[in-house]
Amino acid sequence: MARLKVGVLISGRGSNMAALIDAARAPDYPAEIACVVSNRAAAEGLATARAAGIPTEIVALSAHADRAAADRAMTAVLARHGVQLVALAGFMRILSSDFPAHWAGRIVNIHPSLLPAFKGLDVQRQAIEAGARVSGCTVHFVTAELDAGPIVAQAAVPVLAGDTPATLAARILRQEHRLYPLAIRWIAERRVRIEGGRTLVDGVPPGATLLFSPDA
Amino acid sequence: MARLKVGVLISGRGSNMAALIDAARAPDYPAEIACVVSNRAAAEGLATARAAGIPTEIVALSAHADRAAADRAMTAVLARHGVQLVALAGFMRILSSDFPAHWAGRIVNIHPSLLPAFKGLDVQRQAIEAGARVSGCTVHFVTAELDAGPIVAQAAVPVLAGDTPATLAARILRQEHRLYPLAIRWIAERRVRIEGGRTLVDGVPPGATLLFSPDA
Repeated sequence: MARLKVGVLISGRGSNMAALIDAARAPDYPAEIACVVSNRAAAEGLATARAAGIPTEIVALSAHADRAAADRAMTAVLARHGVQLVALAGFMRILSSDFPAHWAGRIVNIHPSLLPAFKGLDVQRQAIEAGARVSGCTVHFVTAELDAGPIVAQAAVPVLAGDTPATLAARILRQEHRLYPLAIRWIAERRVRIEGGRTLVDGVPPGATLLFSPDA
Repeated sequence: MARLKVGVLISGRGSNMAALIDAARAPDYPAEIACVVSNRAAAEGLATARAAGIPTEIVALSAHADRAAADRAMTAVLARHGVQLVALAGFMRILSSDFPAHWAGRIVNIHPSLLPAFKGLDVQRQAIEAGARVSGCTVHFVTAELDAGPIVAQAAVPVLAGDTPATLAARILRQEHRLYPLAIRWIAERRVRIEGGRTLVDGVPPGATLLFSPDA
């Protein structure tokens, strides 16, 4: 069976991109990383991708007339690499609404909270300030509305006494690196349908929603 | 050491009350159930409490001039039993704001979601309709603001494919029955301080925030 071609969008070190590259090394993983695109030439993740033999591209906003033009250039680049699914991985540039519309149902993101709680930026601080004892991460389809698209998968982690946004972010990130490859596996296996603004995941064993112990 | 005297407020079957009664049977449990108060004479939980030898009281809104008067009567009843901590357990009558103010820092509730997500009523349906893959329950201090007081403890459960509000509620309830006795243990052990609208729990091992497997 042909593997699903995934284009990963990064802006920085791309640790979730690295987790996806690593997962896709397994012969039975049903997706491959077709290209990595950054909006910043200085993104550290570009070197990681190149070292893994993955084509990289830079689509800088500054090289285009406006956001919409940059987004069209991005879509052209992704199409050139045959991308079937776009995976945002710490991509920090705001997208025009045309971009998720063009890729509707074929673009996912990973967000470091249990959505719908704690949308936007600095979400680990939001969780700590709310006194939450549980937080986590969410893989969701991207829509024009911020952090509100259909949820594919979530993983929970504890918020511990003495956590700073940085320590909580690190704990959540370890689960992101497990969850994103799993969610993209399900999508590549065509298990995931969007219906009525929610996703249905077929044939996944009960409990595949991930709840990790603090030591995991 | 004297055990903390807990007054439990119920309106129905009082399954969390029963879990607290059960926990307090252990000789080393640092709290005792001093009385159970219902706003409904027909509450099934009253029989459970009586069978366990716990004094029960009924404070019906209809027997008082208004909500504030009923709340004052409730406080008088609780004081008569020497109650030091009020635990709401499916208490479905709206309280006047004077009641949580009088018991500030000495009144807790258990809510079937991971607050701040999904406040109010029918929260399991809210979680399912949001497509959440993780939900849970929260023990929090009660303030005048609905479902917004300082969080003491949370436990997470998966939301499974095919869940109805009833099946999800049952899964969460099993964790409520573990979490509420644990949180009240911490309070009775004087581990819990409220600071800046959040709680600090001292001397609880890391990871005591509970993340349960689906089979737990």
